[in-house]
Amino acid sequence: MTTIFDAPEDFAATALAGFADLYSRHVRLVRGGVVRATRVPEGKVSVVVGGGSGHYPAFAGYVGAGMADAAVAGDVFASPSTAAVARVCRQAHHGGGILLGFGNYAGDVLNFGVAAERLRAEGIDVRIVPVTDDVASAPAEAHGKRRGIAGDLAVFKVAGAAAEAGLSLDEVERITRRANDRTVSFGVAFDGCTLPGAGGPLFTVPKGRMALGLGIHGEPGIREEAVVPAKDLAALLVERLLAERPQGVTRVAAVLNGLGATKYEELFVLWTAISGLLKAAGLEIVAPEAGEYVTSLDMQGCSLTLIWLDAELETYWTAACDTPVLRRGGEIRTEPATDTIVNEDAAPTFGPSSAASRKDAACIARLLGLAAKGLKDAEDELGRIDAQAGDGDHGQGMRRGSAAAEDAVGQALAAGAGAASTLAVAGDAWADRAGGTSGAIWGLLLRAWSNALSDDAVFDDAAVVRGARLALDAVTRLGRARVGDKTLVDALVPFVETLEASFVAGKPLKSAWIDAAGAATAAADATAALTPKLGRARPLAERSIGHPDAGAISLALVARIIGEAI
Amino acid sequence: MTTIFDAPEDFAATALAGFADLYSRHVRLVRGGVVRATRVPEGKVSVVVGGGSGHYPAFAGYVGAGMADAAVAGDVFASPSTAAVARVCRQAHHGGGILLGFGNYAGDVLNFGVAAERLRAEGIDVRIVPVTDDVASAPAEAHGKRRGIAGDLAVFKVAGAAAEAGLSLDEVERITRRANDRTVSFGVAFDGCTLPGAGGPLFTVPKGRMALGLGIHGEPGIREEAVVPAKDLAALLVERLLAERPQGVTRVAAVLNGLGATKYEELFVLWTAISGLLKAAGLEIVAPEAGEYVTSLDMQGCSLTLIWLDAELETYWTAACDTPVLRRGGEIRTEPATDTIVNEDAAPTFGPSSAASRKDAACIARLLGLAAKGLKDAEDELGRIDAQAGDGDHGQGMRRGSAAAEDAVGQALAAGAGAASTLAVAGDAWADRAGGTSGAIWGLLLRAWSNALSDDAVFDDAAVVRGARLALDAVTRLGRARVGDKTLVDALVPFVETLEASFVAGKPLKSAWIDAAGAATAAADATAALTPKLGRARPLAERSIGHPDAGAISLALVARIIGEAI
Repeated sequence: MTTIFDAPEDFAATALAGFADLYSRHVRLVRGGVVRATRVPEGKVSVVVGGGSGHYPAFAGYVGAGMADAAVAGDVFASPSTAAVARVCRQAHHGGGILLGFGNYAGDVLNFGVAAERLRAEGIDVRIVPVTDDVASAPAEAHGKRRGIAGDLAVFKVAGAAAEAGLSLDEVERITRRANDRTVSFGVAFDGCTLPGAGGPLFTVPKGRMALGLGIHGEPGIREEAVVPAKDLAALLVERLLAERPQGVTRVAAVLNGLGATKYEELFVLWTAISGLLKAAGLEIVAPEAGEYVTSLDMQGCSLTLIWLDAELETYWTAACDTPVLRRGGEIRTEPATDTIVNEDAAPTFGPSSAASRKDAACIARLLGLAAKGLKDAEDELGRIDAQAGDGDHGQGMRRGSAAAEDAVGQALAAGAGAASTLAVAGDAWADRAGGTSGAIWGLLLRAWSNALSDDAVFDDAAVVRGARLALDAVTRLGRARVGDKTLVDALVPFVETLEASFVAGKPLKSAWIDAAGAATAAADATAALTPKLGRARPLAERSIGHPDAGAISLALVARIIGEAI
Repeated sequence: MTTIFDAPEDFAATALAGFADLYSRHVRLVRGGVVRATRVPEGKVSVVVGGGSGHYPAFAGYVGAGMADAAVAGDVFASPSTAAVARVCRQAHHGGGILLGFGNYAGDVLNFGVAAERLRAEGIDVRIVPVTDDVASAPAEAHGKRRGIAGDLAVFKVAGAAAEAGLSLDEVERITRRANDRTVSFGVAFDGCTLPGAGGPLFTVPKGRMALGLGIHGEPGIREEAVVPAKDLAALLVERLLAERPQGVTRVAAVLNGLGATKYEELFVLWTAISGLLKAAGLEIVAPEAGEYVTSLDMQGCSLTLIWLDAELETYWTAACDTPVLRRGGEIRTEPATDTIVNEDAAPTFGPSSAASRKDAACIARLLGLAAKGLKDAEDELGRIDAQAGDGDHGQGMRRGSAAAEDAVGQALAAGAGAASTLAVAGDAWADRAGGTSGAIWGLLLRAWSNALSDDAVFDDAAVVRGARLALDAVTRLGRARVGDKTLVDALVPFVETLEASFVAGKPLKSAWIDAAGAATAAADATAALTPKLGRARPLAERSIGHPDAGAISLALVARIIGEAI
């Protein structure tokens, strides 16, 4: 279990700070991530990678000459916020555009995707490549739906080497996509891991059993069977991957990855058998790696990754690099970076606003304060609901996000922000501090809503209703959730539709809002009722990550609080 | 737990082979170890390190330019045999003499020490430096009695750099001893590890508790207390080490070592606090490392090592190196080695022997065959006895060793060896294959006994009795055990004394031997009775490693078998 920590919520940030202190030759700490400590030529494509913490050396350990330019680190097993991704990207940009690499998980797709849109709006060319190597998570025909696991190392190594070689962003993107298309991984888990401060493991595998294809956060696998000897395990992993071997491939790179508590010597034993099987299949193995490259805290298990090489991929896979976790070649020369880290912690400044809009902003602040109080009171209950189907952190995330929004709004008021700016910074702060998918969604929701407001004119009731529709559009477009997916969208859709219908029918805003909050509550209760009460010991296939009902329930709660107060 | 293996007894050797395949740029596999794959200048001092397996990257991961020339690997948590140490040293010798580095454990002291004597007899200058960094294992006044833990990394790094700089063996030895004198470590364990194939952990630490100063094989610690937050743990480790800070030291190197299942991010969190405390104590931290450097399979826990630097030690601590686990500097150039690995697996050859002595050799072979059969039958029972106070592998070791001796003797007979040579190779084979302390002792015993025999003359009964005394002398001189230490010496002393007394009193050899076997059995039974029956859950202070009673019991068993057969 994870034993060494102070406050569990500071674990990821403190670990990152310690890492940056130890590897100061490679990295510099910025808020939410690290950037290279060595000089990068102006105009080079920047490769920025990231994801949740708890997976070291993914992702901060990949930063260095020949590989990544920066890494963004979320909380443990939680996506970094949109704001964090954007912030680290700005620090790491050297004028050549950015390739953003991350594992294909809903929260990461959302936060990295929204950050990419935001950066593009600022004039930075950004491409995103979600890694999709886990063959257990979707069939080969649906390659793009696969999760990203230890293939991260291979794909990011190739991307970093292509960027280091001075290729254009188009070329780096093409080669990175090709690396991802030709990278496959298959893993087994022998037991789960324990989050810092948690009373028990996040998930478990019965003693003497192994879960095939179980994801690195305990996502459902393919099946469970008895632990087998190393030779049989090697055959199981190799055969599953060889089933996807493209025609004509004779050279292969390999990464045998330990998840944390399955140790090096076990991996070496397994490698002996894997190496024999790959050679027997007529494959030449190029620069294989066996060690810990994408961990899951102290999870027991391992995965095998193969990269079907062609001449181009082999060049970049074997190219020199010098990072905390991977060092290749003897010739890569580095010198300390001379650019300075931009301090983004300075107090925010806002454009001009009218006195009327500043009054509206004060009203927004009051409502957010009430929402934050309500979410704080509901934290434990939301956590309990979430723990039935997810990792139980929804209450904590909502409390953190709403409290951060309240703080940010207070600063915005003091700095003279108008209503639109105030609601926008509330969204950014919420997403930044809450982390994870629901934090990102709340950030989108508030920021999109703010687009219906202004820093100048007094807002009328119709603008508020228009904002609700903008918020729903943004959440469904970028969050990709539909009604029935058991997310907050299940409550947001009836909320917005009822709000619009009642308002169009001539009701005043407060009445329309109360109708809408009622509809959201009914919908949230219904999704909750649809979800069976699942205990921790439920079978793998029934397990899911995320907070489906809790997300809808907390949205309905906030809607009711606001309805009573306006 | 350790989950990936085929036959547990092949775990260490298969892991080493897999490692050598993966790191073929750094190392070449030889029997029982690895040697550098890169060219070494003729005349350079060779640094050879080693110990039991299960501690990766100790010790094979330390081999490479700027650090070790070779590593010897025993079975899991068991010293490599004398023959393996000597064999690897011969492969790694480049004419400049050898510095042998290993942790200060009885089995390693014995096997490395005897190997050094053997190599010196062959004309190779060898110095031994047992690492003694664990402050929990003995007070500062008895520095030489301390165990070696993660300080291995620091001491061997300095030794390797001094050798790489071209210093003489005298100088390398002086600097290595100075590094060891100025290296201190203190560790905590949160839970034990499981040997490959074992049904349960080798030892446990109660949930929510931590064992302070527990050794890397579960040796007794100082005390047990509740797990504390990272900041308090940092203070506990730092304060204990600062208590031994030499006057005037202002610069310090540090290694924060994870034991296997305590992961990187936990270490980084802890490092943040440790770093602050060291700086607050006025220390400048030089090139710190945090990661897995000396593990214990999947044990949970960590240790902090400090090296009190002076200008000389700092030079060698920070010097360039390029090994699987540690790479420093950007300038170290290597080229592939051009020397060839000597094949020591060729059939042995022997000097001339008389027909009479060859007949004696056949008699020795028959007796060894009976002993091997008896030990095989007793394997489980000896294992059970050993498990009461040790790690339960004594029966396995005795079976392996005696079977190997039987095989070797068969080969020796076929090659026309006389009696002395036959008994000598029996001892070497036993020690080589059984591993651990008891294997080494049996090897010494048989080899020393053979010195009373000859390949020419028929041996008389008096020579057999003289041999017993030689065997006892060798075992007590090199094994350093005395009666009462609960080792096989407890049975060997009464055996030899009774054999001599009965023989001098005029009894024929068979009768004298039977008397001696009876005395050995009585003594063995007595030591067994003295040892409380300790369960696995016994308190730390009562725990011990090794096989005290089982060693005496198996010696008495062999004595009885031989007595009946001669």
